[in-house]
Amino acid sequence: MDDIFRESLYNRLRDWVLQAGEMIRSKIDDPLAIDTKSTPKDLVTQMDREVEIFFATKIKQFYPEHAMLGEEGYGDYLTETNGTIWIIDPIDGTMNFVNQKKHFAISVGIYENGIGEIGMVYDVMNNQLYSGLLGGGAYRNDQRLQQLNPQKTLDTSIISLNHHWLMPNRIVDEKYLHKLIRDVRGSRSYGSAALEFMHVAEGSSDAYVSMQLAPWDFAAGKIILNEVGGVISDTDGQPVNVLENSSILICNPSIQERLLNDYLLPAKK
Amino acid sequence: MDDIFRESLYNRLRDWVLQAGEMIRSKIDDPLAIDTKSTPKDLVTQMDREVEIFFATKIKQFYPEHAMLGEEGYGDYLTETNGTIWIIDPIDGTMNFVNQKKHFAISVGIYENGIGEIGMVYDVMNNQLYSGLLGGGAYRNDQRLQQLNPQKTLDTSIISLNHHWLMPNRIVDEKYLHKLIRDVRGSRSYGSAALEFMHVAEGSSDAYVSMQLAPWDFAAGKIILNEVGGVISDTDGQPVNVLENSSILICNPSIQERLLNDYLLPAKK
Repeated sequence: MDDIFRESLYNRLRDWVLQAGEMIRSKIDDPLAIDTKSTPKDLVTQMDREVEIFFATKIKQFYPEHAMLGEEGYGDYLTETNGTIWIIDPIDGTMNFVNQKKHFAISVGIYENGIGEIGMVYDVMNNQLYSGLLGGGAYRNDQRLQQLNPQKTLDTSIISLNHHWLMPNRIVDEKYLHKLIRDVRGSRSYGSAALEFMHVAEGSSDAYVSMQLAPWDFAAGKIILNEVGGVISDTDGQPVNVLENSSILICNPSIQERLLNDYLLPAKK
Repeated sequence: MDDIFRESLYNRLRDWVLQAGEMIRSKIDDPLAIDTKSTPKDLVTQMDREVEIFFATKIKQFYPEHAMLGEEGYGDYLTETNGTIWIIDPIDGTMNFVNQKKHFAISVGIYENGIGEIGMVYDVMNNQLYSGLLGGGAYRNDQRLQQLNPQKTLDTSIISLNHHWLMPNRIVDEKYLHKLIRDVRGSRSYGSAALEFMHVAEGSSDAYVSMQLAPWDFAAGKIILNEVGGVISDTDGQPVNVLENSSILICNPSIQERLLNDYLLPAKK
């Protein structure tokens, strides 16, 4: 992607994300119609759909040659990363949106031929816009995020993961994750994958592990994280494909090897 | 306590809490000297001490007849709740303060003859001051908090608890807590007891469970929570003593009985 086009796309995306955020804030206290999808805990609201349709309409109007992949299904069905693809989660952390009316984000990543060009994660209620531009650094609003501390050690790290992975489950042997929780300084769980990525990108946590994420959960975060030197793989240490569901480990690179070798690889069932 | 004195104490406490918050914010990017207390994860910094000394000095100057109980030991040793007692955590969530430079709070509760009169929890970096006045309601900054939803059900609840209680431990049989995590809508962990209390008070979570808290962790939160109809007990369902360490269950009252009878009482070792 050439620099001038990337810059213009970035500016336009930022306008749209801020507009969508304003739309959500203006209706935050309205009564919500809540549906469930795959499970009773997999929530979706009219607002998720409205925001995704907002982006789908804009993209079709301004960039009819681009493709879109969205959580709520208003985009395209894609199997190849050719061309320019927008990967969108209109509300990442829908449970937080429903129960808390905060701690959720709009997440948009733009890829060209598989390369992450622009990522934005907007913490709507805190009015914090995280953004990253390939080779151009990462920002929280207008403040540039620093490169991650290269001296970080596991015993002074905070790690985020969902409580479920500490309970018996089909994917990992939870005993290795118990050991991980004992060995790190602290553990947290915030309920929005996109915001968990931003916590790692800004250094307020040092790793985030999830055994199952969809492309829209991590497409934007991956681009922003890369700009501060953060690393992403699946929990086997292999590269992730942005069009496929995947397990995810993101972290400060100084603790990646230990997280994989001492905890995640042995935990694999 | 008479109404006029309670009001004047409230105003003075608010001024002091905001001043202490400003002091912390002005030094938030300074290098930190970090010590540990009971365990390698039990952190304390010079800032915890400075803020507690700030309050101890003010109280001695303005209210020499009052007693103070503080996390860092600059207060009094108390065994009885006679008279007026200030219970202070200068920085609740010290690990967040150290690693995240946010998500921590100043917590101050004022009790007279064992009755909670005034509570304040200040989320310093978000500049959100939660406060409660006996019989006068609870506030987040100038906005009055609503009474908790009396129709809340367990399956639509979000519950907060530390990951450690889902792992083998000496206090509870973790299997009952696994069932709890499966039965609720979602679970979170934020790393500051005082802020977990505020999440329940504002309805953004519906319960918080901890197997071990100190008086300064819950003294302020208890007063604020009571003002919105939230309930507090230990995990046996018994009243808590604000001068003693205790297990804690706080929640929306509509789910208290189920939380105790179906999960916490059977889990007791």
